Amino acid sequence: MIAIVGATGAVGRELLAILADRNHPAERLKLLASARSAGSTLVYEGTSLLVKELKASSFAGIKIAMFAAGSEVSRNFASIATIAGSTVIDNSSVFRMDEGVPLVVPEINITALDDCSHPTIIANPNCSTIIALMAVAPLHRVAGIRRMVVSTYQAASGGGAAMMEELKRQAFDYVESKPLTKSITGRQYLFNLFSHDSAIDESGYNAEEMKLIRETHKILGDDSIAITATCVRVPVLRAHSEAINLTFERPLSADEAREILCAAPGVKVVDDRKANRFPEPLDATGGDDVLVGRIRADISQPPGMGLDLFVCGDQLRKGAALNAIQIAEQLFTRTKTPV
Amino acid sequence: MIAIVGATGAVGRELLAILADRNHPAERLKLLASARSAGSTLVYEGTSLLVKELKASSFAGIKIAMFAAGSEVSRNFASIATIAGSTVIDNSSVFRMDEGVPLVVPEINITALDDCSHPTIIANPNCSTIIALMAVAPLHRVAGIRRMVVSTYQAASGGGAAMMEELKRQAFDYVESKPLTKSITGRQYLFNLFSHDSAIDESGYNAEEMKLIRETHKILGDDSIAITATCVRVPVLRAHSEAINLTFERPLSADEAREILCAAPGVKVVDDRKANRFPEPLDATGGDDVLVGRIRADISQPPGMGLDLFVCGDQLRKGAALNAIQIAEQLFTRTKTPV
Repeated sequence: MIAIVGATGAVGRELLAILADRNHPAERLKLLASARSAGSTLVYEGTSLLVKELKASSFAGIKIAMFAAGSEVSRNFASIATIAGSTVIDNSSVFRMDEGVPLVVPEINITALDDCSHPTIIANPNCSTIIALMAVAPLHRVAGIRRMVVSTYQAASGGGAAMMEELKRQAFDYVESKPLTKSITGRQYLFNLFSHDSAIDESGYNAEEMKLIRETHKILGDDSIAITATCVRVPVLRAHSEAINLTFERPLSADEAREILCAAPGVKVVDDRKANRFPEPLDATGGDDVLVGRIRADISQPPGMGLDLFVCGDQLRKGAALNAIQIAEQLFTRTKTPV
Repeated sequence: MIAIVGATGAVGRELLAILADRNHPAERLKLLASARSAGSTLVYEGTSLLVKELKASSFAGIKIAMFAAGSEVSRNFASIATIAGSTVIDNSSVFRMDEGVPLVVPEINITALDDCSHPTIIANPNCSTIIALMAVAPLHRVAGIRRMVVSTYQAASGGGAAMMEELKRQAFDYVESKPLTKSITGRQYLFNLFSHDSAIDESGYNAEEMKLIRETHKILGDDSIAITATCVRVPVLRAHSEAINLTFERPLSADEAREILCAAPGVKVVDDRKANRFPEPLDATGGDDVLVGRIRADISQPPGMGLDLFVCGDQLRKGAALNAIQIAEQLFTRTKTPV
């Protein structure tokens, strides 16, 4: 039995869509949400499922509890779920950096599950981190990343379903010459962009940038990698893009990198220089693969020692729901117990 | 007498708007365009001005010819204009890297005008280059830039008025549930982004990126600066944004950088960490200043040796027309002859 906590949110709905793709039976699914959303129904494979209110008693008989309702809910209910015997796969940032909590991208560091003898909480990494590392980790294994400079082009979906709706709403307002609806973003988002709307710490980095830096260290198991990032929201609905500049320990040519990426699971190389076709967020939307292109030797570094890349990945799928489901599937494979 | 070659284009119209702001008299203005646009009229300070067809004979009596009609026209007509005695201020990339052609951002390297005894063609740099260097050059003077990693978020205006129109048109098509108009960009641009649509060379860099690299070397007078760039078009109408990562020769703190930038002409620091307010392209739109923010010490480099910045500038103004007009004003000041 799987519980989805935050079933009515953007990630919750995507979790349901992916479970349906995988033919997970409706009767082995429990949908949970706040009192505000409880009582509504969601259609799952033709069946109307009632969304129940999240309570301390919600987790009896739940094998896997997938949390996608924000940090507050994870902080308050994850340990309750584990005490009830559930394994929590948490999409929030609350537990990610905790020792003993595996932070997992299955294609990259699935062994982190084995390192903890009985993990009760497994953290799903930040979307920008997952999408960047799908391309970076395979190169790291071969050439060793010494430094990363990342600039993101992040979609509205990272701000939740309401931010996506506001971006679309602004297109209608614009066309209808109405004052733009600004209740979520507080600004014109259509035809504009803005620095990621997470809190800035005293170093001047925002929380999204620090997540990308710290989670990369944990997932790659190497705190010595020098990383800086600038995280920006662009008026795109649900796929993140990132320009990534890499410095290597050992030389790696663009051709070698391309070969490695072509063979990497969950990665699709889109790098047609002649046709000028490279990853675009719309092409990544709804898909499972992270698209990688603009693979080229960085001419600002000694030959072979640096590379530039451009990646796009669906923020709600590989950046969140798909990665969480893949973790659940790995747990199932390992424990050989049906969920 | 000033001639505007390409008066009906996006940059041409902006040149007219800025000349009007500066009260340049309508009778000292000649508007030129291709045969296709010739015969139309443009309103300038309440006067209807006829757009004449660009011909070899167009430049008699023209003191300054401002070219904003693309590379082909500059290639074919700039030398004709200089032979007729005009000084050409060229917005295309044709002459930018030619020895003896000053490539000028007035706030940065106005002395380049003096280095050439009688420049007949003065090149206006690429928009992304101007906007980046407005923030970078003042820091370079103090700390010496050793390396730059730039990721751009470029507006539709760089692709011309037709690309801006297509982006707006797509918003209407989207709202009206019509198939999207794709004749200029060949794709959905609304809610999407794509690698800059300029030709890719065999190194894998596109022409826009190489312009940014080479023009920076020429303007800063230092070919040893290591530069890499990833240029991307985002669905924004007319202001470019850039995430810039710098490595210095000599230490410079974020506070020192902020002070330098606060004092730099043509630059406005927008860097409110508490309110999470930083440069946004819409706030740069229609203005003369390049906005600079997210000024922070890069934690991936030794203390003081690196900085991250985010800049926005109006592509049509400081990125093109305003810079060209400022060059013309400097010429006027130097020669003390009225235009």
